[in-house]
Amino acid sequence: MAAERILITGAGGFVGQALVRALAGTRPIIATDRAGLEGLALPGVTCVSGEIDDLALVAALTAEPLAAIIHLATIPGGAAEADPALAARINVAAPMALIDAAAAHGNAPRLIFASSIAVFGDPLPPHVDDETPVRPMLRYGAHKAMIEEWIATLTRRGGVRGLSLRLPGIIARPLAPSGMKSAFLSNLFHALKARDPITLPVSPDATCWLLSRQALVTQLVAALDLPSDPETTRLNLPALRIRMSDLVAEVARQTGADPALATYAPDPAIEAAFGAQPPLSTPAADALGLAHDGTLAALVASALADL
Amino acid sequence: MAAERILITGAGGFVGQALVRALAGTRPIIATDRAGLEGLALPGVTCVSGEIDDLALVAALTAEPLAAIIHLATIPGGAAEADPALAARINVAAPMALIDAAAAHGNAPRLIFASSIAVFGDPLPPHVDDETPVRPMLRYGAHKAMIEEWIATLTRRGGVRGLSLRLPGIIARPLAPSGMKSAFLSNLFHALKARDPITLPVSPDATCWLLSRQALVTQLVAALDLPSDPETTRLNLPALRIRMSDLVAEVARQTGADPALATYAPDPAIEAAFGAQPPLSTPAADALGLAHDGTLAALVASALADL
Repeated sequence: MAAERILITGAGGFVGQALVRALAGTRPIIATDRAGLEGLALPGVTCVSGEIDDLALVAALTAEPLAAIIHLATIPGGAAEADPALAARINVAAPMALIDAAAAHGNAPRLIFASSIAVFGDPLPPHVDDETPVRPMLRYGAHKAMIEEWIATLTRRGGVRGLSLRLPGIIARPLAPSGMKSAFLSNLFHALKARDPITLPVSPDATCWLLSRQALVTQLVAALDLPSDPETTRLNLPALRIRMSDLVAEVARQTGADPALATYAPDPAIEAAFGAQPPLSTPAADALGLAHDGTLAALVASALADL
Repeated sequence: MAAERILITGAGGFVGQALVRALAGTRPIIATDRAGLEGLALPGVTCVSGEIDDLALVAALTAEPLAAIIHLATIPGGAAEADPALAARINVAAPMALIDAAAAHGNAPRLIFASSIAVFGDPLPPHVDDETPVRPMLRYGAHKAMIEEWIATLTRRGGVRGLSLRLPGIIARPLAPSGMKSAFLSNLFHALKARDPITLPVSPDATCWLLSRQALVTQLVAALDLPSDPETTRLNLPALRIRMSDLVAEVARQTGADPALATYAPDPAIEAAFGAQPPLSTPAADALGLAHDGTLAALVASALADL
């Protein structure tokens, strides 16, 4: 029974809350985060508050064998640039210690790690696929690439059955300071729904890889039961590639808002980092049955359902 | 004047001591280590004892701009397996913090990082060259690959002018517990010189990539002044590929010892990790003028000079 338990870190966040709800009742869950756990007192869910870089917390979370870990806890891109020391602790030291502790029971737990397309940095090559080498520019992207390497190594050694999933832009996050440089992608939904004007820091022709939270949660849950392959511990997740003006038009259509509420004032750094995403192919993830939202209309409808 | 200063970490170690002696008098040097600094009170050398994961020490070492850093401090392979938490602090957290602190002055210091062929893990492919992907098996190798990624990122960002040099086996280290799984390579020299028997944990046909300390120091000093290229921040160092029985014969010849003092009891794990090194080509380092010892006789003579 104990070995069926799944640990979810970052469980209080935007993705984590939906993931806990999706898994609650199917298996015993330990949900941990520094905050945001209030709504997760669901059947079979044990909530544990704390900082993931606290070794005493890690020891408690891993005191008994775990069947799986889904590691979402992170300091995102903008926040990591603002506090490099904190980001190094949370994004690098903490997952290294957590994974080591979880592996120590010898039961090779499944480990799903929320990595990021930030490992590719910018400028991106004309096409991104499963062979594209990592080349981070943000601290956050470097941290993710470093932990991917750690997980690949521990998986080859048999300590864990690891899989790093590189997340694209996930929409629509809550309208709050998230520390994410890509926050404008979610803020667009909030603005048009509220009939507020919004200035986007990219051009109308900007192209972004996007996935709704629900589609991501479906991928994460599916990843738990995928066969583990020590030679494939990193996957680019399927995502729709959407032109910014098309996204604005579709959000306006589904919310009944005037698309002219959205105007464009491209910031070259934001455009380069989040608005110049080339065609993406993800044959390895596709072959495993992971899928994006399918259509722009479905993506926007799913994102609006989060608001 | 201050910006000419070179910081050398791990300065009290086998390589560090020789490096400090080679550079002393040419430029102001700050030599730091937890121990082993006693003999380094040379002109222009400031010795600072301390643990490299002590943030107060790092702050003191980087209080003024540095022209360059040669980062040698590390917990080696065997010791890292024995104390994973210590190794994560010294091998990952400490260099991340040190490099960030050094970069904060905005003068893009030169950064030479002692990485390792352990990034390639085992089994090795039939040939290793500049395109061979990393695939560590030891924690130590994963740590080195992770810091290579950190340095590549900070170099692309302009924070440092970094270069990770992947060291092969360095001989002949002192006869002492070094925490290195490859210690037998150095212990052979000590044994034959002392006319002591030694049992080698590899086969006579084992092949190893080797470099003498003097040849390595020459490479490290040359690396300080190489032009920095953000697209080439990782180099495999030139090394001789030597068959174990040939090494035994040459050490016996130069020391006048009976080669039969060395016997073989191969340990499969040691043979795989250190005795199955395939042909190595290092065109990028060769083009930059870095060179190995040239001949087996020169390698052995240089290694014996360290005893």
